Amino acid sequence: MFLQLDGRGPLHAQLTRALRSALLNGRIGPGSPLPSSRRLATDLGVSRNTVLAAYEQLRAEGFLAGRVGSGTYVTPPMQLRVAPSPQIPIPPQSRYSRRLRAIHDHSAVPGRSLPGTRFAFQYGAPLINPALTSAWSRELARAAAYTEPVYPLAQGLPALRQAVCDYLGRRRGVQVAPADILIVAGTQQAIALTARVLLDEGDAAVIEEPQYFAIREILEVHGTSLQRVPVDSDGLITDAMPANPPRLICVTPSHQFPSGVLMSLERRLALLDYAEHHRCWILEDDYDGEFRYDGKTHAALRSLDQNDRVIYVGSFSKVLFPALRLGYLIMPRGLREDFISAKWASDFGSPAVEQAALARLITDGGFDRHLRRSAKALNQRRSALLQGLRDCSLGRLDIADSRAGMHLVVWLNGKTVDQGDHFIARAQAHGLGLHPITPYYLVPPDRAGLLMGYAALSVTEIHQALEIFARCLDDEYV
Amino acid sequence: MFLQLDGRGPLHAQLTRALRSALLNGRIGPGSPLPSSRRLATDLGVSRNTVLAAYEQLRAEGFLAGRVGSGTYVTPPMQLRVAPSPQIPIPPQSRYSRRLRAIHDHSAVPGRSLPGTRFAFQYGAPLINPALTSAWSRELARAAAYTEPVYPLAQGLPALRQAVCDYLGRRRGVQVAPADILIVAGTQQAIALTARVLLDEGDAAVIEEPQYFAIREILEVHGTSLQRVPVDSDGLITDAMPANPPRLICVTPSHQFPSGVLMSLERRLALLDYAEHHRCWILEDDYDGEFRYDGKTHAALRSLDQNDRVIYVGSFSKVLFPALRLGYLIMPRGLREDFISAKWASDFGSPAVEQAALARLITDGGFDRHLRRSAKALNQRRSALLQGLRDCSLGRLDIADSRAGMHLVVWLNGKTVDQGDHFIARAQAHGLGLHPITPYYLVPPDRAGLLMGYAALSVTEIHQALEIFARCLDDEYV
Repeated sequence: MFLQLDGRGPLHAQLTRALRSALLNGRIGPGSPLPSSRRLATDLGVSRNTVLAAYEQLRAEGFLAGRVGSGTYVTPPMQLRVAPSPQIPIPPQSRYSRRLRAIHDHSAVPGRSLPGTRFAFQYGAPLINPALTSAWSRELARAAAYTEPVYPLAQGLPALRQAVCDYLGRRRGVQVAPADILIVAGTQQAIALTARVLLDEGDAAVIEEPQYFAIREILEVHGTSLQRVPVDSDGLITDAMPANPPRLICVTPSHQFPSGVLMSLERRLALLDYAEHHRCWILEDDYDGEFRYDGKTHAALRSLDQNDRVIYVGSFSKVLFPALRLGYLIMPRGLREDFISAKWASDFGSPAVEQAALARLITDGGFDRHLRRSAKALNQRRSALLQGLRDCSLGRLDIADSRAGMHLVVWLNGKTVDQGDHFIARAQAHGLGLHPITPYYLVPPDRAGLLMGYAALSVTEIHQALEIFARCLDDEYV
Repeated sequence: MFLQLDGRGPLHAQLTRALRSALLNGRIGPGSPLPSSRRLATDLGVSRNTVLAAYEQLRAEGFLAGRVGSGTYVTPPMQLRVAPSPQIPIPPQSRYSRRLRAIHDHSAVPGRSLPGTRFAFQYGAPLINPALTSAWSRELARAAAYTEPVYPLAQGLPALRQAVCDYLGRRRGVQVAPADILIVAGTQQAIALTARVLLDEGDAAVIEEPQYFAIREILEVHGTSLQRVPVDSDGLITDAMPANPPRLICVTPSHQFPSGVLMSLERRLALLDYAEHHRCWILEDDYDGEFRYDGKTHAALRSLDQNDRVIYVGSFSKVLFPALRLGYLIMPRGLREDFISAKWASDFGSPAVEQAALARLITDGGFDRHLRRSAKALNQRRSALLQGLRDCSLGRLDIADSRAGMHLVVWLNGKTVDQGDHFIARAQAHGLGLHPITPYYLVPPDRAGLLMGYAALSVTEIHQALEIFARCLDDEYV
């Protein structure tokens, strides 16, 4: 009997696998006697104990029958297994899968880091703060020791919900209670849960144009019919809202993504009126409202809303780091139970140790220290980038000065989207990572644009990167 | 002007909120002049700087206009806000929400700990291993220092996927590659993702009767049409499979939940044949297959499957602790991209630091040490519970000896489900937490049964708890 051992792990396990495989593919048929353990051991050059262990295991699994002395044979009712069928592409198994395949390419997510670049203006890459890394390491170790190991509440740890309320009241002017808060695995999950709670397949939602690509993709994958409403320098143009009201309106009022615009108070109130009048819901994504450099702040839609139509979403990905996967959602009162149940049905609740560690980081002041330090460093990086871009522009760039956040948008005057892609490829050949603005538009804009994230580059690196940028710009505009 | 300050936070913030609220509800109308800062300061008994800070903030928010000296007035285009409408119950906003409300009561999840009990035979409460707690605390602190803070891969950290493969090969006899593995937030999310990838609303799935309540609820909430197939002492009765084949079959072959039965090899092969013949998918939930006390193991369906129809789900909730929220899923090759995309669309990927820490715990041996220690302790607890139950039974109990896992099932002979609930209430009045078996049946069984989890009680506690149990039993069977 030829048995091919695969050389992985203990000998008796290798033999068990080889025998099982021979039984399954029919090379040893039902009812066949197996060689005696002594004989097989001699044939294979292994110890008899090895063979006995393998036989015993297969007997326990029901493949073999027989007793010592009377021989071992293959269990009669064993059905022969056919050889594996050749791999054929499988059609999508659900409408959801069909949309996933049509819409999302997870190997080409916008803003992913580009290999082989020295400097990357990558949006979403965080500012590295060594003090935060040590504080987080310390809080995690501490939290692991005192956190109850049981299933956490689906709504989130009470201590974290309280800490989030305190933070929102203190820094964002939003007054809510822990009962209003749902802890989620980041903005992504907040949108996915909102879609499940509010939208059937085919229901309509309004998104801003341009918009965060992930919000668009998650809603499209959900089967939502998307209506885009353009943004001007006052934010979403509320007069351009569709005549047929959607069920959900997704906005980024404190720092429109990616344009950087702050939504005016007038538009905020108009949007709330529209939502109340047409009974639609508003998802207010406050993804990085923490960082503003011009002193302007507007009351969040959520705190202006007197009719409980606003779902406010906050994330710790931008203010701490994206690997964390924690965020929160302020639930309208009438939808609380639905949201908590939807979270339960998605993943039972977020990990408890990280929730406990984050609650401590907020209450003991480490979080605020990190915010102050980040805001200062980000503002320096932003100024360096703005100044450097202005210096090399010579009228060729249209710089949308973002007064908040960790990115800005730069347009290449007179260049088409294709020419912009060429410019990006040229920059990459020189070790500079740039990212096009196109993934953030449903309908591509009529000129080339770049989304430049500056959080992860030091001022020195920004200066060095801009030298390459300026050379590429000169080459492009010869 | 009457302004009610709320006493929360700095005075200027209180005043800002009070003024904003008065502006929003129309008590101060558009175009109205506001009192001078000096006058309002005197009226309210606060410093003039406090009033100036509040005015400045509201000016930045767009509520107020005017310059120093010429008076401050309410911005003209401000629209009056109506008073909040009274809270009215909101109907479900989607079919998903309607099902959530009908099916799931997140405040009454089976197996939740009961307040005020001294001893609780609670399923899902983990065995406390102080060595694990310190190892985990150490690994987390370490991982926080070296884990990249960026968005993790949606599929999961390569190091963890490799560690899971090694573990599966070494201890579960399943040979897979890291490319086959998807890291998920526990079994719950694995089921929810499987439902999204495979099932449209109304599609059919087979579940075991009895079954884990969460698998049933998640599928029902998804809109799945459930067909139950009973389980006997050889596991799922494959001859009882429906004539109309379902799209998905959910089974717990290595330790049927909650009955504890091990599915026979013959049934395993019959099920695989059925799935191949009818082109359905099998979800193999190996939630606690790690702990077996009789030496019997069967090859996992996944390792018997030659046609790539099995989705194998494993969890670290049972073998480590439930607060962790990490598990994994072995994807059929043809569905890999769909599963990874669905995970991305749900939450972008699981938290990176905990993934890195778990990878280390597995590769450096801490995980195996915990498994050995747990298996020994669990077996002692199980033996103590079994022996104690047999001692007090006197023919009144029918004990389904679970030879695996961390729970067993006990039937109260001659007692109806209602009488069983009465027995549980009586036990609770004596400080003993018991849980009925009914939530794990789609159709209630014809006698009273208990699901007794023993992982979280020491042998001594089990002895003490059984004294109460025996007294309650005597009272019940007078």
